[in-house]
Amino acid sequence: MSTTVFEGLVQQPIFRTYAFYVALLGLKMLAMSGFTGIQRMKNLAFANAEDAQTYKLKPKVHEDVERVRRAHLNDLENIPIFFIVSLVYLTTNPSLFLASTLIQIFTVARFIHTFVYAVIVIPQPARALSWGTGYFITIYMAVCSLLHYL
Amino acid sequence: MSTTVFEGLVQQPIFRTYAFYVALLGLKMLAMSGFTGIQRMKNLAFANAEDAQTYKLKPKVHEDVERVRRAHLNDLENIPIFFIVSLVYLTTNPSLFLASTLIQIFTVARFIHTFVYAVIVIPQPARALSWGTGYFITIYMAVCSLLHYL
Amino acid sequence: MSTTVFEGLVQQPIFRTYAFYVALLGLKMLAMSGFTGIQRMKNLAFANAEDAQTYKLKPKVHEDVERVRRAHLNDLENIPIFFIVSLVYLTTNPSLFLASTLIQIFTVARFIHTFVYAVIVIPQPARALSWGTGYFITIYMAVCSLLHYL
Repeated sequence: MSTTVFEGLVQQPIFRTYAFYVALLGLKMLAMSGFTGIQRMKNLAFANAEDAQTYKLKPKVHEDVERVRRAHLNDLENIPIFFIVSLVYLTTNPSLFLASTLIQIFTVARFIHTFVYAVIVIPQPARALSWGTGYFITIYMAVCSLLHYL
Repeated sequence: MSTTVFEGLVQQPIFRTYAFYVALLGLKMLAMSGFTGIQRMKNLAFANAEDAQTYKLKPKVHEDVERVRRAHLNDLENIPIFFIVSLVYLTTNPSLFLASTLIQIFTVARFIHTFVYAVIVIPQPARALSWGTGYFITIYMAVCSLLHYL
Repeated sequence: MSTTVFEGLVQQPIFRTYAFYVALLGLKMLAMSGFTGIQRMKNLAFANAEDAQTYKLKPKVHEDVERVRRAHLNDLENIPIFFIVSLVYLTTNPSLFLASTLIQIFTVARFIHTFVYAVIVIPQPARALSWGTGYFITIYMAVCSLLHYL
């Protein structure tokens, strides 16, 4: 038996889909830090005295920075849980088509969420709908897992 | 060898316990977003101008909203780390009884923490004890893993 | 085939490295909560009315507490994503040497980040460099995974 666990995982098509979208969503989340940094520079709004001092300023709060930070926090509230809950859901032997579709819709919804929240502010219900799509997909996966492992 | 990795996982009783409580704690964390939304509506305290505008208001901060958000942030600080650290701990071949008991106590403690923090505020040490129970279980699992993989 | 998935994982040297550093980084993150608590006590700056009341005080914000909290939030933005992205990266069959070196550098960088941010404040670019090291390692792993699972 020379197959390692990691080699075994790679042979499962649904794991390959999962791995691809985890990497994509991971990059998307990391981009939020860079985006916050850009907004801080643009508005010279720093959180730390030692950063503001470089420009002979004091730390200040700016709404454009806070907006990106709220979008980032929303990612932190939703995406890492999705990473774990969807992995558990995949072990419940769901249909390959359903599982990969849900992962793809979740990903698209989170990209839209950030766009309408922090890139170009689009009136509600754009943000509520994109957030809700990801939210209810994660809830669906968690409930399926709960019932399966009861 | 037709068994996939996911099928192999499902055959391990401790993984089944883990999967169940991950799903339950995931739902608990997601519920915090809904709870925050309810408190925002109830107190008409919105973080975004475009949301407050619907009610011809400006964004404002309300203690009842902030309290739920602090409980949510405390979840974010403790539960995702537990998801990963406990999974690593399970690979150290702990006793099935000890491992599942720790996972169950952690889960109960986190539910109690949210309840005494943000549903009905119960004086200390209720919050400290429920937080500490989850905290020290995670530390115990991390230290066991560290010694095992040294 | 009596080998369970967890037993199979333990036999993979790179998983053993991963498990060790997950446990170490998990403890490091958990330490931030204790560190925040110490700063709150030292400066009598509490977030909750019921905690401040014990000292006949009102909740207040103190920069030394906020600094630790920003360092903690920075951990939350970077470390859990690393846990998942690096695990996915390990399934892409990277060289054992490269993968374990990256995991080790990431860990050291995150310890330095916390130290220069919240223990002894060291002028920039200390914080930027230590943060950037971890950040770009995670991006590298995510991009490798993305290309591998395309």
